[in-house]
Amino acid sequence: MTDTGSGLLATLRAELGPEAVLTDTDVTAAYARDRMPLAPSGTPLAVVLPSDVAGVQAVVRACADAGVPVVPRGAGSGLCGGANALDGCVVLVTTKLDRILEIDPANRLAVVEPGVVNLHLREAVAKHGLFYPPDPASYDWCSIGGNLATNAGGLCCVKYGVTTDSVLGLEVVLADGSLLKTGRRTVKGVAGYDLTKLFVGSEGTLGVITQATLALRPLPQAPGTLVAAFTGTADAGAAVSRIVGEGLVPSLMEIMDAATVRAVERHLGTDLGVGTGPGALLLCQSDAGGEAARHELAAIGQVCTDAGAALVHATADLAEGNLLMEARRAVHPAIESMGAHMTDDVCVPRTRIADLIDGCGRIGAEVGLQVVVNGHAGDGNMHPTVIYDAAAEGEFERARQAFDAICELGLALGGTVTGEHGVGKFKQDWLERELGPVGLRVHRQVKRALDPHGVFNPGSMFSLE
Amino acid sequence: MTDTGSGLLATLRAELGPEAVLTDTDVTAAYARDRMPLAPSGTPLAVVLPSDVAGVQAVVRACADAGVPVVPRGAGSGLCGGANALDGCVVLVTTKLDRILEIDPANRLAVVEPGVVNLHLREAVAKHGLFYPPDPASYDWCSIGGNLATNAGGLCCVKYGVTTDSVLGLEVVLADGSLLKTGRRTVKGVAGYDLTKLFVGSEGTLGVITQATLALRPLPQAPGTLVAAFTGTADAGAAVSRIVGEGLVPSLMEIMDAATVRAVERHLGTDLGVGTGPGALLLCQSDAGGEAARHELAAIGQVCTDAGAALVHATADLAEGNLLMEARRAVHPAIESMGAHMTDDVCVPRTRIADLIDGCGRIGAEVGLQVVVNGHAGDGNMHPTVIYDAAAEGEFERARQAFDAICELGLALGGTVTGEHGVGKFKQDWLERELGPVGLRVHRQVKRALDPHGVFNPGSMFSLE
Repeated sequence: MTDTGSGLLATLRAELGPEAVLTDTDVTAAYARDRMPLAPSGTPLAVVLPSDVAGVQAVVRACADAGVPVVPRGAGSGLCGGANALDGCVVLVTTKLDRILEIDPANRLAVVEPGVVNLHLREAVAKHGLFYPPDPASYDWCSIGGNLATNAGGLCCVKYGVTTDSVLGLEVVLADGSLLKTGRRTVKGVAGYDLTKLFVGSEGTLGVITQATLALRPLPQAPGTLVAAFTGTADAGAAVSRIVGEGLVPSLMEIMDAATVRAVERHLGTDLGVGTGPGALLLCQSDAGGEAARHELAAIGQVCTDAGAALVHATADLAEGNLLMEARRAVHPAIESMGAHMTDDVCVPRTRIADLIDGCGRIGAEVGLQVVVNGHAGDGNMHPTVIYDAAAEGEFERARQAFDAICELGLALGGTVTGEHGVGKFKQDWLERELGPVGLRVHRQVKRALDPHGVFNPGSMFSLE
Repeated sequence: MTDTGSGLLATLRAELGPEAVLTDTDVTAAYARDRMPLAPSGTPLAVVLPSDVAGVQAVVRACADAGVPVVPRGAGSGLCGGANALDGCVVLVTTKLDRILEIDPANRLAVVEPGVVNLHLREAVAKHGLFYPPDPASYDWCSIGGNLATNAGGLCCVKYGVTTDSVLGLEVVLADGSLLKTGRRTVKGVAGYDLTKLFVGSEGTLGVITQATLALRPLPQAPGTLVAAFTGTADAGAAVSRIVGEGLVPSLMEIMDAATVRAVERHLGTDLGVGTGPGALLLCQSDAGGEAARHELAAIGQVCTDAGAALVHATADLAEGNLLMEARRAVHPAIESMGAHMTDDVCVPRTRIADLIDGCGRIGAEVGLQVVVNGHAGDGNMHPTVIYDAAAEGEFERARQAFDAICELGLALGGTVTGEHGVGKFKQDWLERELGPVGLRVHRQVKRALDPHGVFNPGSMFSLE
């Protein structure tokens, strides 16, 4: 270890207490990666777990002084390597800042620390009849800080938006250790630049979020559920376009292509009624409540029938709805059981979903691998997943080739290379491609303005030059 | 005129054609101010009206080369002096870039140039059954570009949010004349920093918006309307808190204090039933449609009754609803008829509205002037208005003293000094106060990063040092 390294460790231990500074590589390895297996990760000098803002400030100041990068990290559920360690860095874990500081029902807001688990916040506000919408798949263990850093999405987005839409204000520790307060407690406000939304989604490259004021909604009604089976992707895509075009706003609208359906059927041992062709399954929910929900689902069902659905079934019964949703919940375990896989995260205009599914089929055929497609049809955010055999010669490379071709296709369809997972240490080249030279330059200018010495997560999202 | 000035004018005329470069001070005076009478304004070197992006780029490049500031301007309906000319500047008017480039109903978006009038966009998308929510009071003549620059609000915000909530992407001419594209056409996306929302609300200090991709919603149902009259502000405030706390989301919720009510009664020659005490009137609408709207208004009515309303009346009839809304529409003309006035724009947590109204009464009494309070109760954005006699010795100064005391009160109640009007060339000191030194420093860092030579609107919003 260098003198700088040991001096820094001594400072960190003095500031946080020795128990909050982990250096045993067997232990720190658990904090060195998130859930994206393809992104590179390094070996940190230390993993630190401050339990208050002053601790975060002390870590940032000490690292800035020592010229050691800080990689902020939440629960580690990320899917882009954004929280992956760099060699010799300090991983700053925010999970010990885990207090719900305030729930204010009359103003419909909550003030929380970043380490609060998404589910815990949901449960706490539900007791007041309130709802915190963002619901990434990992909602039962991911942290609000990570959700903020990645601007997490989920199933709710079609009706309730993404994380940034629920954030009123932040406290952020900047690269010099100073504490910035952004935004406000009011639902409106135009005093100055919208720094809040600049930090949301900045993937730990601009600062460490230490507190957030979050807007809450009324708790929705128990949802009614509709399932529609199509014998062709074009019909399913047309149904999605028409549902959106007719102004219907389901609270959930998920799509699975035929390959996903078959994987789920194998996994659950049931027949989902799509048949053996290039079909697709659409799952919708309405949380409008009572008669309104029945009307909404009836209208969605009519659109599906008109678009050529082979089967449409709707239910207001919560238990039956949960049973129908079982197919959606089985997608991840079903894919897990198929072997190694790379899950992409393109988002396309909602009218181009069928084109994306069909294109993914062609890409899979070209590389000789299966690509299963499922995703959030309501907002066009699709997760094509390439299945491969990690032990088979050349399959990883072909899978990666397919993965990149899917990003390319997403852009060609007028979409983005990442709808909700982020860029991190994995999609930097694709971000550069999507932003173009002017966009990249502005990103670098903003980064340099707020973090001139590259303290925070350098090289993640984009290179500094 | 300096050599620099005449050289720049020659360049501008060559680039845009002579008819698009105005220098006659009788003509340019019409472009030198917005609608905030208290903000300073200067005499521009020229007012230019480019009609395409290349023209905007040419103007910015020429001005940057000449070291002459550019003040971007829309229709001029602003209320903070943000578009007011600086001495010797070039006012860049975007009203000639006025095309609706695309309406895509299936993806529920529109692509527009900044000069499109808000009302024209509303009408154009309504033909497709779609809705562009932001509805500032000047919606029938303000431009989308100005709405974007100020992150405009309006009556819709309680349910549908402010301008930034409807923006998917932008094209912006930067300080070096290059063209930045931000955001995307998809409803979700996390590729890079959220530059879109950084430019929205930046009041012409970071670039010139030349195109916007806007998210549209389904056209709501014709609204049902409810009016509730209270004999005390505390009761009215409690009703607002409970409506929000119970998870009700009206599509409009406006409040008028007793002084506003009496001004409106005088103006309309009617009795609004509030009596002569320190009462208040609450106006709510629900656009949920049919039975859902009736339920929503019934629930709101019950809350108002429980909170002590002296009178509650709801109607599903559109014509009768319009009649009830007449009182709200009469607020501005009623205030106009009272004499000179300064309209403030604080936004407080929704639970503190009664405190704000009562505090404004005290402030008025202290300076010996009347302060009438009305505003968007649903989001706490209040417009206390100080009435004064411009000809009376010392009244302007006392009015300004009351105005500042109202900003102070807004902050003390946990609010912001501007909910929707902006900072511009009027509230810079208050912005500095609200942001604090770290927030101000970050604003300056962002400004310098994107506009290092201070081309755009220098000194507006905040000073560069």
